[in-house]
Amino acid sequence: MRIVVLAGGIGGARFLRGLKQAAPDADITVIGNTGDDIHLFGLKVCPDLDTVMYTLGGGINEEQGWGRSDETFHLKEELAAYGVGPEWFGLGDRDFATHIVRTQMITAGFPLSAVTEALCDRWKPGVRLLPMTDDRVETHVAVELDGERKAVHFQEYWVRLRASVPAEAVVPVGAEQSKPAPGVLEAIAEADVILFPPSNPVVSVGTILAVPGIREAIADAGVPVVGLSPIVGDAPVRGMADKVLAAVGVESTAAAVAEHYGSGLLDGWLVDTVDADAVTRVKAAGILCRAVPLMMTGPDATAQMAREALTLAEEAREA
Amino acid sequence: MRIVVLAGGIGGARFLRGLKQAAPDADITVIGNTGDDIHLFGLKVCPDLDTVMYTLGGGINEEQGWGRSDETFHLKEELAAYGVGPEWFGLGDRDFATHIVRTQMITAGFPLSAVTEALCDRWKPGVRLLPMTDDRVETHVAVELDGERKAVHFQEYWVRLRASVPAEAVVPVGAEQSKPAPGVLEAIAEADVILFPPSNPVVSVGTILAVPGIREAIADAGVPVVGLSPIVGDAPVRGMADKVLAAVGVESTAAAVAEHYGSGLLDGWLVDTVDADAVTRVKAAGILCRAVPLMMTGPDATAQMAREALTLAEEAREA
Repeated sequence: MRIVVLAGGIGGARFLRGLKQAAPDADITVIGNTGDDIHLFGLKVCPDLDTVMYTLGGGINEEQGWGRSDETFHLKEELAAYGVGPEWFGLGDRDFATHIVRTQMITAGFPLSAVTEALCDRWKPGVRLLPMTDDRVETHVAVELDGERKAVHFQEYWVRLRASVPAEAVVPVGAEQSKPAPGVLEAIAEADVILFPPSNPVVSVGTILAVPGIREAIADAGVPVVGLSPIVGDAPVRGMADKVLAAVGVESTAAAVAEHYGSGLLDGWLVDTVDADAVTRVKAAGILCRAVPLMMTGPDATAQMAREALTLAEEAREA
Repeated sequence: MRIVVLAGGIGGARFLRGLKQAAPDADITVIGNTGDDIHLFGLKVCPDLDTVMYTLGGGINEEQGWGRSDETFHLKEELAAYGVGPEWFGLGDRDFATHIVRTQMITAGFPLSAVTEALCDRWKPGVRLLPMTDDRVETHVAVELDGERKAVHFQEYWVRLRASVPAEAVVPVGAEQSKPAPGVLEAIAEADVILFPPSNPVVSVGTILAVPGIREAIADAGVPVVGLSPIVGDAPVRGMADKVLAAVGVESTAAAVAEHYGSGLLDGWLVDTVDADAVTRVKAAGILCRAVPLMMTGPDATAQMAREALTLAEEAREA
């Protein structure tokens, strides 16, 4: 079975670990969000790709969900001692190596997709990890700061400001001119199932869908597309998805997110058992729906979520 | 008193610390060798400048003489895990920060002299540290390796090969086209005394003198120029100076090094007490000479060496 998964960072990565456990023989291609990539200290940092790679490759800091295990922060301390920032982005000494290798390869002329493949040669994540695009796409968030309306990089909004001010707009700058990375459209066309993990529907999955050709390829693939709600009980399970949902005029409920994707894209949608009353509304939108436990409390719970998603996909196929 | 010192790495840095103790009120300008600079992992590394900066700024690993104190090597471990080398060059996590800041500034268009000044804003070495040039000069060493004659970067010869094969030639590539960095010729012209610490006469002091204009400015400064022999008892005190001296046809003796600099450049030369019999030969070459203890066994011994050098400079001035 060939499965394509559109993934953001922590939520996507943990879901993928469950999916690998649920479907150990599946051929999994992950299309990773690169809209939150950022250049720091002259280095290209790809937080979402790295979170997937580290999580599936056994190098993740399990507790925080991002960054490396057994990490130290001496380099960052020294940068601060030189007065060189930003200080709000937590790059560890081990993590820096990934960004240095990536930047060297990019500078040498390799596209991000080739670089990601080379990095995965080490981590062996057990999936094929593709960036959504080799082109530069940068998610910017329009905010009002100190009385002034300005656009900040997504990471500045998310990490520095902790989404403490309303997001007035979310713009994947460069997306319109971008092309899907090599292999992305082919993987979608050859997929048996396409999954949207409980990743952020705006700045993770939404950014991937903003790359011209990807949304269309998924809609036209003719295979079940099933998503898992990142909103449980009207609040994001993790992160601050509600803040960016507001920016695109979507309420923070499991049903509203399904409607936001729409039946043109989604065939099935899983909501948490606490949101069982959303099932009727989602079904009314023409999307198969079931309420199951959606808290990734551990590997087994997550694998069970993946199993439920695959089961719903089979139902969608037969429907 | 304005003192100009031409410095390589460890020997030069330690001597400078003694000089600061011996002449606490002196205005010291250090012209640092950049011929052993190297690009590693996409970053510009300046080993000699950094050794001077860390040593005088209190950040040096005292035991090894180079690199940072309280250092860790996690980033390097990770680069090796990615299969990205070279592994033979020991960059620590804290040290990496210096190279990242430097590379960012160079990429932004600042010359190395401005970058060095910015880095010294943090370290406050108590001297004015100038690179010999803002231009790229790279010391290459011609060797026979595996039956083939080839040129290797100085660091590869020194650090990877540990000077285990004969150096057939030492070439400061790019030196002929280089210009002294801003402030270098002015500092020499305004100096009251010019000192050559017990640094490598070929690949440290020799490389600085290879930048067109520097040798001439020193010879024409009309102030005492005094050196300290890096060779004690026919062997280098530290490093492998004998290997590169052979490449330029100079024997590894305190007297031969003085003759190599020559009376056109040197006014005074200190040899170690074990080389007292070299004094006559050096004097015969028209250079004032005295035998004093030249082992930098500690701060006081080193400060005493600096005092002897300044005393010999005064004698040269009166002669």
